[in-house]
Amino acid sequence: MSLSLQRLKRYVPILDWGARYNRDTFTNDGIAAVIVTIMLIPQSLAYALLAGLPAQMGLYASILPLVAYAIFGTSRALAVGPVAVVSLMTAAAVGDMSLQGTAEYALAAITLAFLSGLILLAMGIFRLGFLANFLSHPVIAGFITASGILIAVSQLKHILGVDASGHTLFETVLSLLGKLGTINVITLALGITATGFLFWVRKGLKPFMIARGFSVRTAEIATKAGPVAAVVVTTLLSFAFNLSEHGVQIVGDVPRGLPPLTVPVFSGELWSQLFGAAVLISIIGFVESVSVAQTLAAKRRQRIAPDQELIGLGASNIAAAISGGYPVTGGFARSVVNFDAGAETPAAGAFTAIGIGLAALFLTPLLYFLPIATLAATIIVAVLSLVDFTILRGTWEYSKADFVAVLATILLTLGFGVETGVSAGVILSIGLHLYKTSRPHIAEVGLIAGTEHFRNIKRHEVQTASHVVTIRVDESLYFANARFLEDYIYDRVAGCNKTKHVVLMCPAVNEIDHSGLESLEAINLHLKDQGITLHLSEVKGPIMDRLKKSHFLQALTGQVFMSQFAAIQALGASVDLPPDTQS
Amino acid sequence: MSLSLQRLKRYVPILDWGARYNRDTFTNDGIAAVIVTIMLIPQSLAYALLAGLPAQMGLYASILPLVAYAIFGTSRALAVGPVAVVSLMTAAAVGDMSLQGTAEYALAAITLAFLSGLILLAMGIFRLGFLANFLSHPVIAGFITASGILIAVSQLKHILGVDASGHTLFETVLSLLGKLGTINVITLALGITATGFLFWVRKGLKPFMIARGFSVRTAEIATKAGPVAAVVVTTLLSFAFNLSEHGVQIVGDVPRGLPPLTVPVFSGELWSQLFGAAVLISIIGFVESVSVAQTLAAKRRQRIAPDQELIGLGASNIAAAISGGYPVTGGFARSVVNFDAGAETPAAGAFTAIGIGLAALFLTPLLYFLPIATLAATIIVAVLSLVDFTILRGTWEYSKADFVAVLATILLTLGFGVETGVSAGVILSIGLHLYKTSRPHIAEVGLIAGTEHFRNIKRHEVQTASHVVTIRVDESLYFANARFLEDYIYDRVAGCNKTKHVVLMCPAVNEIDHSGLESLEAINLHLKDQGITLHLSEVKGPIMDRLKKSHFLQALTGQVFMSQFAAIQALGASVDLPPDTQS
Repeated sequence: MSLSLQRLKRYVPILDWGARYNRDTFTNDGIAAVIVTIMLIPQSLAYALLAGLPAQMGLYASILPLVAYAIFGTSRALAVGPVAVVSLMTAAAVGDMSLQGTAEYALAAITLAFLSGLILLAMGIFRLGFLANFLSHPVIAGFITASGILIAVSQLKHILGVDASGHTLFETVLSLLGKLGTINVITLALGITATGFLFWVRKGLKPFMIARGFSVRTAEIATKAGPVAAVVVTTLLSFAFNLSEHGVQIVGDVPRGLPPLTVPVFSGELWSQLFGAAVLISIIGFVESVSVAQTLAAKRRQRIAPDQELIGLGASNIAAAISGGYPVTGGFARSVVNFDAGAETPAAGAFTAIGIGLAALFLTPLLYFLPIATLAATIIVAVLSLVDFTILRGTWEYSKADFVAVLATILLTLGFGVETGVSAGVILSIGLHLYKTSRPHIAEVGLIAGTEHFRNIKRHEVQTASHVVTIRVDESLYFANARFLEDYIYDRVAGCNKTKHVVLMCPAVNEIDHSGLESLEAINLHLKDQGITLHLSEVKGPIMDRLKKSHFLQALTGQVFMSQFAAIQALGASVDLPPDTQS
Repeated sequence: MSLSLQRLKRYVPILDWGARYNRDTFTNDGIAAVIVTIMLIPQSLAYALLAGLPAQMGLYASILPLVAYAIFGTSRALAVGPVAVVSLMTAAAVGDMSLQGTAEYALAAITLAFLSGLILLAMGIFRLGFLANFLSHPVIAGFITASGILIAVSQLKHILGVDASGHTLFETVLSLLGKLGTINVITLALGITATGFLFWVRKGLKPFMIARGFSVRTAEIATKAGPVAAVVVTTLLSFAFNLSEHGVQIVGDVPRGLPPLTVPVFSGELWSQLFGAAVLISIIGFVESVSVAQTLAAKRRQRIAPDQELIGLGASNIAAAISGGYPVTGGFARSVVNFDAGAETPAAGAFTAIGIGLAALFLTPLLYFLPIATLAATIIVAVLSLVDFTILRGTWEYSKADFVAVLATILLTLGFGVETGVSAGVILSIGLHLYKTSRPHIAEVGLIAGTEHFRNIKRHEVQTASHVVTIRVDESLYFANARFLEDYIYDRVAGCNKTKHVVLMCPAVNEIDHSGLESLEAINLHLKDQGITLHLSEVKGPIMDRLKKSHFLQALTGQVFMSQFAAIQALGASVDLPPDTQS
């Protein structure tokens, strides 16, 4: 195989798996596609509603983007399309600028998908996938939980049949409370029944059917079809009793046909307004998608290529933008369903696209009487599985800094909306990390008898020599902590006349930047003034390479020892008894 | 001594050194004060001019602030007052909002001093001095150099006698070039002569006088008095030939008397406009001041308390704000002069304040004819000593990341002004540091024969066992690099059937946050699936304490060894010959 073909296959994975495609894979992918299609139809409509967009845009976002991902994506099971959190973020970004229901609103959502696609593509081409790592696991967990709550609360208005709005928990709840007098009782009854039914389908249907002799597989498929049943039954009820005459909101006219070709707006003003939101949506969407893809790939011992995933998702979003959709990403629930249903290649996604395309062509007139409350119930039941507060307990027990980051992310997302919440989480994680590294743990160490191993004198029974002070600094020496080490050493040797040597043990020093180098030079001079020799030990290769380029090693009063044991042997240490730990 | 008195002495250091004040210290402080006063008078006027403020505000900023620092500061030699870089930053901050010469402009500068004082005080009380560490040495050096150039260029208009303006190098140069036709020849002659004279005084006067038999001390004092001589001579010339009639700009009326009591503006709008600039001025001022104070303290084996310095500088700025001054900080040149002249306590600063106060009372009428070109010459000669490009070469050789940060700071300061420049430097330093830690150095290690020491198999002749892979990760495991280690280990063990044990050697792991913990759990499970046992070795005390709070140690398939040597002994390693380094 030529090198350029190999390269092409890396960027267009379909060339790789497509060549090995056969009848068995086709059958498996096909079955998975049917199940996912049934699940996706109500979800697509519901998420479009959540994003404040016409229902058909949810369907459009589930056609071409799936084909694009099938060509460029690397995950075998990821199902791409509109998802809850990204729909919420779209509503937040676009809702700041125009009114729901207007053409500008829809066009802004399309442009957002286009921008997000460009950003993802650029990140993939320039291999910037590592940027997503700065969104720590706890911050993501907190953000998803808070978003789930925001989404569920935002749908309450459809269950109650009132007209309320708001981007934050406080606004939404206040708006709902103000409208309690206008509740539509039929909508409420319908909404509560649908929600209760869907909860029961999710939790109770499978054991119920198995107990009645159905096979596990049949029970599982029935569970997935629950939302479709709710849609069918409530649509029939709505049609039969003409519920819209009684104030029940229905979906109404959904244009029939395949997605139209759309062109995103190329307006500098709109782009700069949407850019920040597009970056956040891209990164959040990528992180969610990649973690689902990695979890599923690991189960079959496959690997995914994160940088190529960026390209796959970028292509999907651009496909969404040119076909009247809005931002998409890999969804958790549908990908698991796809995986469980036996999808073997990204072709399953392409087949799903065909299914949704058929729905857009032929089923939309049937959706006319579908009550919006049913879609809201679908959303509420779906997103409440995202809400998970165990991360709070886990981080509280393990790491207070992570706990603070999670709590801030949750509270700020609820209180000030998704963009503020996730940005604050990222900034806080980075800030707390920098703060910790700016005040590193510094230990004075001694020899553990009978070994060549040195440990903290405050934690272990060790031997030390009174004229040699060995300090192990547990951090890279860089600008944020350079002065800290200086202060520590000056305080340690002040008023201690016995000290003749200070050994800086560096196994934990992973970098010494220019500020750190200047600090070492200052420490060397300061100790020299006091007649104390400075030595280093266990300096790592890459750091030694750099130090050799500076003048520090010439100026150093002592030596650089390969190991701390070699240092203690060379400095002729008469080893004393274990010291008072306060010495 | 009671605890509360000790505490009080920490916050009000004058109570400490004041009690031991005697006649000798008084004499030494007095002599230093006279010399510094002579130096400060033209400097104060010149820096006020640089800040775009009336000349007397420079004098006012050199009276009460010095008294406040004498009470609250900890450095024995620091001389506080208007300095070049902070004056430039003041001009940039205030110039965005109002026109030079207006009352609003002066009031905004006063308010800036007040805000800056409050920020410094708050940082001191909450012990936030460590924040200044995030301004790395190279970024500061680059910023000071670029500021020096900006300041010198900004003064050229006074030397040329034209009317030009601009906050960036480009703007200023362009504005100057457009005005070349309006050069005032007398001003130019005066300016060039004064600049040349002051350069000569700085470089050539001392050797010249010593060669003619003067004592070194006399020659040094004469050097310091050079600017005063320039002021006196050019003022006399200006008076004798009535130069202002020939288009030479003169200082003009300077109100006579002590500083007026002023009240900063309490306007939410003004405060929020100035807040960002006040934060930058506070931090830059603090960093400059503390590094001067520490350098001088080290020479006499004294220490300064950085958090108390924040309180001292905060008090000085508030003093400046209530007495018609503008932001102040400790200046390098004047502090060195103060130190060399023998200042022993902060009282020297208070005596200097008396000197400047007398000048404000009696000398201001004499300044009427002083040509502004002379003050510009004083500034140019003073700031060119700040310009130092050696940091570029030093960082280029030692650390490319630092080099990038310095270069960006210099170019952005010159191109987009002081605030953009220094902010970009800080953000870039932090970003580059995070980037480096997100892709840590990972080494596979082996035993150095005859020792218990393990080193990189690619750099040293080491012994390894084929069924044990020991990986040393040279970074804390935290959110930014958690996935990186996972990928590395999965790639390392993939397709290597011999591997039975993976030992993660952790001497360089200084922290494991919640994301890192989740990655370790994932690695443990992944290896378990492949029949490989995961062990840790040399985990530090604080990290072990945290791991014990999680469930990781129960789930860990292997053990945690005190040392890597113990791990290799326990895993019954049949030590092989040195491996191929590519294995």
